[in-house]
Amino acid sequence: MIDRLIDSILAKNNPTVVGLDPRLNLIPDHMKEEAFEKYGFTLEGAAESFLTFNKAILDAVSDLIPAVKPQIAMYEQFGVPGLMAFQETVRYAKEKGLVVIGDIKRSDIASTAEAYAIGHIGTTVVGEQEYPVFDEDMVTLNPYLGIESIEPFFPHMKKRDKGMFILCKTSNPGGGEIQDLLVGEEKEPLYVVVGKKIEAWGEPFRGKYGFSDVGAVVGATYPEQGTTLRKILPHTFFLVPGYGAQGATAKDLAGCFNEDGIGAIVNSSRGIIGAWKSPKYEGLSFEDATRQAVLDMKEDLAQALEEARRK
Amino acid sequence: MIDRLIDSILAKNNPTVVGLDPRLNLIPDHMKEEAFEKYGFTLEGAAESFLTFNKAILDAVSDLIPAVKPQIAMYEQFGVPGLMAFQETVRYAKEKGLVVIGDIKRSDIASTAEAYAIGHIGTTVVGEQEYPVFDEDMVTLNPYLGIESIEPFFPHMKKRDKGMFILCKTSNPGGGEIQDLLVGEEKEPLYVVVGKKIEAWGEPFRGKYGFSDVGAVVGATYPEQGTTLRKILPHTFFLVPGYGAQGATAKDLAGCFNEDGIGAIVNSSRGIIGAWKSPKYEGLSFEDATRQAVLDMKEDLAQALEEARRK
Repeated sequence: MIDRLIDSILAKNNPTVVGLDPRLNLIPDHMKEEAFEKYGFTLEGAAESFLTFNKAILDAVSDLIPAVKPQIAMYEQFGVPGLMAFQETVRYAKEKGLVVIGDIKRSDIASTAEAYAIGHIGTTVVGEQEYPVFDEDMVTLNPYLGIESIEPFFPHMKKRDKGMFILCKTSNPGGGEIQDLLVGEEKEPLYVVVGKKIEAWGEPFRGKYGFSDVGAVVGATYPEQGTTLRKILPHTFFLVPGYGAQGATAKDLAGCFNEDGIGAIVNSSRGIIGAWKSPKYEGLSFEDATRQAVLDMKEDLAQALEEARRK
Repeated sequence: MIDRLIDSILAKNNPTVVGLDPRLNLIPDHMKEEAFEKYGFTLEGAAESFLTFNKAILDAVSDLIPAVKPQIAMYEQFGVPGLMAFQETVRYAKEKGLVVIGDIKRSDIASTAEAYAIGHIGTTVVGEQEYPVFDEDMVTLNPYLGIESIEPFFPHMKKRDKGMFILCKTSNPGGGEIQDLLVGEEKEPLYVVVGKKIEAWGEPFRGKYGFSDVGAVVGATYPEQGTTLRKILPHTFFLVPGYGAQGATAKDLAGCFNEDGIGAIVNSSRGIIGAWKSPKYEGLSFEDATRQAVLDMKEDLAQALEEARRK
């Protein structure tokens, strides 16, 4: 899967993943009104407006980007109708040829992790029938329970050409509370210890670019740590949140890429899906504002990577 | 909420939580056949059999136990129909007067954690309508992202009388891979550091028994660590998985309780919901086997606690 993701990043010359994290206040009134007219002010109505919105975003920019990352929490808070919208969003994005990263951050003991693996990247068996369920291409996972919580995903990953990103150094301001704790004789921060494990876990899953299907989440909000991790995890691809609304600039995250300008995919959610509301794109249609935001981000990243290369 | 849980444990004289983690192979044939006849071998059919099964378990034992803990992964792998069964299970168990612990192990950055908080213990607002969604009484959370991933649950917890258990020392054999790493100058295991944070985070949420609404998950499979944590976290209530199928005995987990015999609730899943298939309960009906398994566990825990008290 990592090869497919990198192929697509290179083909579109754009290491951007759009975070499909809808909120009611980000959705144009006419989309909401239509949904609420049909379903009332219900969870169904909200979920319907999410789906209309996501499809409009995908229709606007899927030729420009390699991947999308729907954050399942945004859907889960709208219950069963929300999760139906999540599932349909995944399906629609895949139909558009995009790699879909399900931002689920699941984690549990082995027998339970197996159920998450089945539900998100595997297939569920009922009698002699077999059903893909949420069926994202890649998922995010949390490492607190160790390899036992990750391993159950491996057979499904291999069999169905899927991938994962494991939380390493997250983008939130207080992520260091646990992740920066200094560990062992070497006094390495926990995120480095976790990073090295991720690199090792991915060893059997390396593809043609040298990167593995077992990636790491490395927040753009920590430039130095990103640069360090890039050096010590040469075969680990990074999913980089934190650009834009969370405060990180393109320069901050340039260190997450290697000398060839690959090695990371950068997420933006509000910066893209909320572009139509931004004063910066005033006067543009929903479609044009969204496209322009993607093009601006692409250019911003390209410039920062070019500058980093020249140094 | 912790007061309500402890009140109920004391009233029923039973610190047992039944893990409602259905699997198709644990469900009696007649329940499955009925569901598959109605829905075919579909996700809907499987989910329907889960719900029938859970209701039968709840009908059999809800007078004997204070709480149930549905593991959401078991439902999530059956997609939207599975999650409908989860939601209906929560509703039915609450109707029976039980405290429902949603074993969801969610975690994310603050703005996203807020969405999980809303969906699981809060209410979702659509227009002027407000909907409780999954609406468990308590949830399990993962600490890897720090307090920022926990805090968004606090206002909902307070407003709606809810609670949480944060992963501290999990029951899986390899949980120590991350959790036992020695941290800082004091070379304390990470789970101790996390445990102390949980104790501190819970300080504003203490109830009449001295325990807080911010509990910890402490695996029964680590007796010494449980005993240590009980001592250094005097105000933190423990959710204790690992008894029975995962190998821990009542003696192993006695140290998770304080001298008054409170301080923990012990989970059993397969040992109870799979009792009807066990040779130990051969000849008993589904209902009687389930009840007997609960009564046996209750007796087993009481004896171990009595022995620990005498020492």
